[in-house]
Amino acid sequence: MTDAGREVCKLPQSDEERGTYLRNCWYVADWADGLGQEPQQKVLLEEPVAMFRDEDGTAHAIGGRCPHRFAPLGHGKMVGDQLECPYHGLRFDGTGTCVFNPHEKGVVPRVSVHRYPFVEKYNLLWIWMGDPALADESAIPDFAWLANPAWEAVRGTAHAEGHYELYSDNILDLGHANFVHPALAADVWTTGKRSFRTESDTVWAEYDQPDDYLSDGIGGLLGRVGVKQDFWCGVRWDAPATLFLDYRAGDVGTPREAMIALPSLHAFTPETRDTTHYVWAVARDYRLGDTEFSDLMHGILTAAFEEEDMPIIRNAHRQMAGKDLWDLEPVVLTGDSGGVRARRTLARLIEEEQQDSGASRIAAE
Amino acid sequence: MTDAGREVCKLPQSDEERGTYLRNCWYVADWADGLGQEPQQKVLLEEPVAMFRDEDGTAHAIGGRCPHRFAPLGHGKMVGDQLECPYHGLRFDGTGTCVFNPHEKGVVPRVSVHRYPFVEKYNLLWIWMGDPALADESAIPDFAWLANPAWEAVRGTAHAEGHYELYSDNILDLGHANFVHPALAADVWTTGKRSFRTESDTVWAEYDQPDDYLSDGIGGLLGRVGVKQDFWCGVRWDAPATLFLDYRAGDVGTPREAMIALPSLHAFTPETRDTTHYVWAVARDYRLGDTEFSDLMHGILTAAFEEEDMPIIRNAHRQMAGKDLWDLEPVVLTGDSGGVRARRTLARLIEEEQQDSGASRIAAE
Amino acid sequence: MTDAGREVCKLPQSDEERGTYLRNCWYVADWADGLGQEPQQKVLLEEPVAMFRDEDGTAHAIGGRCPHRFAPLGHGKMVGDQLECPYHGLRFDGTGTCVFNPHEKGVVPRVSVHRYPFVEKYNLLWIWMGDPALADESAIPDFAWLANPAWEAVRGTAHAEGHYELYSDNILDLGHANFVHPALAADVWTTGKRSFRTESDTVWAEYDQPDDYLSDGIGGLLGRVGVKQDFWCGVRWDAPATLFLDYRAGDVGTPREAMIALPSLHAFTPETRDTTHYVWAVARDYRLGDTEFSDLMHGILTAAFEEEDMPIIRNAHRQMAGKDLWDLEPVVLTGDSGGVRARRTLARLIEEEQQDSGASRIAAE
Repeated sequence: MTDAGREVCKLPQSDEERGTYLRNCWYVADWADGLGQEPQQKVLLEEPVAMFRDEDGTAHAIGGRCPHRFAPLGHGKMVGDQLECPYHGLRFDGTGTCVFNPHEKGVVPRVSVHRYPFVEKYNLLWIWMGDPALADESAIPDFAWLANPAWEAVRGTAHAEGHYELYSDNILDLGHANFVHPALAADVWTTGKRSFRTESDTVWAEYDQPDDYLSDGIGGLLGRVGVKQDFWCGVRWDAPATLFLDYRAGDVGTPREAMIALPSLHAFTPETRDTTHYVWAVARDYRLGDTEFSDLMHGILTAAFEEEDMPIIRNAHRQMAGKDLWDLEPVVLTGDSGGVRARRTLARLIEEEQQDSGASRIAAE
Repeated sequence: MTDAGREVCKLPQSDEERGTYLRNCWYVADWADGLGQEPQQKVLLEEPVAMFRDEDGTAHAIGGRCPHRFAPLGHGKMVGDQLECPYHGLRFDGTGTCVFNPHEKGVVPRVSVHRYPFVEKYNLLWIWMGDPALADESAIPDFAWLANPAWEAVRGTAHAEGHYELYSDNILDLGHANFVHPALAADVWTTGKRSFRTESDTVWAEYDQPDDYLSDGIGGLLGRVGVKQDFWCGVRWDAPATLFLDYRAGDVGTPREAMIALPSLHAFTPETRDTTHYVWAVARDYRLGDTEFSDLMHGILTAAFEEEDMPIIRNAHRQMAGKDLWDLEPVVLTGDSGGVRARRTLARLIEEEQQDSGASRIAAE
Repeated sequence: MTDAGREVCKLPQSDEERGTYLRNCWYVADWADGLGQEPQQKVLLEEPVAMFRDEDGTAHAIGGRCPHRFAPLGHGKMVGDQLECPYHGLRFDGTGTCVFNPHEKGVVPRVSVHRYPFVEKYNLLWIWMGDPALADESAIPDFAWLANPAWEAVRGTAHAEGHYELYSDNILDLGHANFVHPALAADVWTTGKRSFRTESDTVWAEYDQPDDYLSDGIGGLLGRVGVKQDFWCGVRWDAPATLFLDYRAGDVGTPREAMIALPSLHAFTPETRDTTHYVWAVARDYRLGDTEFSDLMHGILTAAFEEEDMPIIRNAHRQMAGKDLWDLEPVVLTGDSGGVRARRTLARLIEEEQQDSGASRIAAE
């Protein structure tokens, strides 16, 4: 029975509403354990994508619009290793090939949907939205801590209104914390030592503050309220908008490697130009298995990311009224340097990709 | 007093969002008993239409946008045989002529709204959306069983998201039942003997299966669970999307005329390109007056048509993103033959109508 | 902490959806006491506007889109006399100048947002949406009674769907009362002595009825049910859509100056082409301080303006499908004379303003 509650995303119908995306790139599609026995359907970069696991547990991502009558394949069910369309029962394997037609006594239409390179790594599912021949697993940014049992993570996924670059800007400029997240406010974000650099296609923003108080929220999580600490934070951005926030603190004089860390992931995958899939996690390597503490941590961070960041970014996005950031001639402050570098890098990558005559085109239809 | 809950449909504001419709055609506007003493307002083919009954009980349909200040006439009230605009009280008769002006002491503006040919037949209200001079009551498809007391019908009306042709495709290809409606699944729909034919402007899809088990749902309604039956089903389509589904079953060897029948109506009238008025009924000629059985039947069929069909068609419609079916180059399976014939017939009728210099034009404004 | 419930208005993204407005004009922004210690954010004429009070209580209105990252300034907080952006903490003074940057240790970007002339008068906040050099406080229409303690007003504000001119048309043609507001129906509105005149840029509609019964609603409020009265009503319109309704009644033979009056304000400020901020008040100079009577009055009038007028105007607006009134060739009745004069005056003022080479342009971005 079809679940009436499972609505698919309304896709943009005019060129004006469509975005331009980097295609030859790994995007976070979901948590690995977000995809169980049930297939899933999502829109990524305005394309319907069906995700499922075969009997071995291998995850697959294929075009989510059935080529027969355009139903969402990801709302279908698994028949062995095959995904059955919920509308007329055509079945597709993990390569996207139609392999069974219940209507014709064995005559299978020679048709297939796109097969997206799809990798399960660091407890995440990574999808390659461009030319499959160019997909290179080694280009997936390192989030080894997410798969390391020494680290226990609290996690979230959210459907966020606003362009995904506004979300990566937000993480790259932690100066917003002092205004958007009172519990996470600290002087370092706005007036401390900050530096920004680009290494190949990766952008880093760093915050470095010796001998100061932590924010109430972080101090509380680390058990370091009211006692001065050295702390350091590095934010790493990789295209399109996959960020690693490496937060560390320790008693004054502690070398960075010996500090307590609260590493976090912030991955933003565009659904459309106006909406974003947000996948986040923050991990610790202490009080492992302490579920009460995990719940506390999860509550603080959900509030910060989903109830504080998301509404203000939604509102900023709406006030941009569909215009490009640069066309609006924004004031640029020191704290924006990371976001600006990321935007320039992404714009360059998109331009290179579009100029590259060898770039594959995924025909959306 | 205006009922704040009575909102009118938002009409498309750009050419891109508008559809193309067959105008010289009978459309199902509603159930005859859906129009009582209270006038009604609906949008059909993107046109506001007001429907009301005069003191004799005769049903009328006229343009639903007051030519004075564009309020929905169908939200007004009856004053004798006249429909009074809910905003400033101009009154219109069943010909659409303004016949009373409360503001000018008898000076009535020489203005009228369109009068739609409107026929009450088979317990339904049929509206002609094109040139009134061409309206021919005899062109209304036969649904005599709906008005025959030997048949007791359970009925429904629904506001459905999705293009109306997707809804008629659905009824013409019963192969979807095995995936969308588990309770109605039967082998015949997908692999049984199926045939398709076009007779003048009418399309038929037929399913013929001797000596097999009925679906659980239909078998239950017919009291024929676990016993093999001969069964036959004919689906008749008439433009634009008015379908008669003639379902019959009987003990093996029963001639078709002697089988038990469950005739049904599925009428789809476009509101806009993206939304459809769905009127359905399924009748039986046994257990008449058994309200418990009627309730059971109504529940099974509402679930099938409104909770199973409608969501998947809505989702397919959204995934088509406003594009024409053929532009999306769909895979065509045997079961689509009925829908393809219906689409071709409708496209031809629309083209003929638009080329016919004698075709009337209803000026939308 | 950001209040997730505070959403900003979605702005039109295409020229097709944008309206044309008179800019050099006073618009009602809100009730004076609607702006307290908390800043407010509204969209007026498709422009985000932030409103706040400084420490002296003086009200200021400045561009509501932060030039840094486009967050709604009016969702920020006051730091002394300065409005702090809720996103990254830039502060702006009442002139719209950025005066503090928390990120750069004192380096303040040389940037400002528009400062709107903003006047507190008659208990209302009036905003000038055009060239500040042309703002002239004396052009604010007279609503002295709103600030006169001899008059006690019941008031409302509503977010209304529909073009603002449809709302001013509605007040200028009280003929609608007999159909939309049964409690306020009286013969004078439709068939009584009505006159219309234009004085400079002000339009008047007058209704004059000696020796007749009042409507049930008004008669009840005035304690004059079942007894004939002389009554008179003048509706004054000033651009863009600010109306004063001067309602008076008295025993037969009472001179107009000695009648009991129920003056009212109806101010309509466009948010977008399709939505309107509606600010209304109705006052009396009797039973002052009688809160039970005030509640009764408030209930009757809220029902009339918000539950009766607003839905029908919303529906008429939707049925106009984004088209200009005149393009739809409306029937014009006597009662429309006031609205037609107001529309012509406003169209002329807009045309003059756009032709005037000296007219300032507020760059929306």
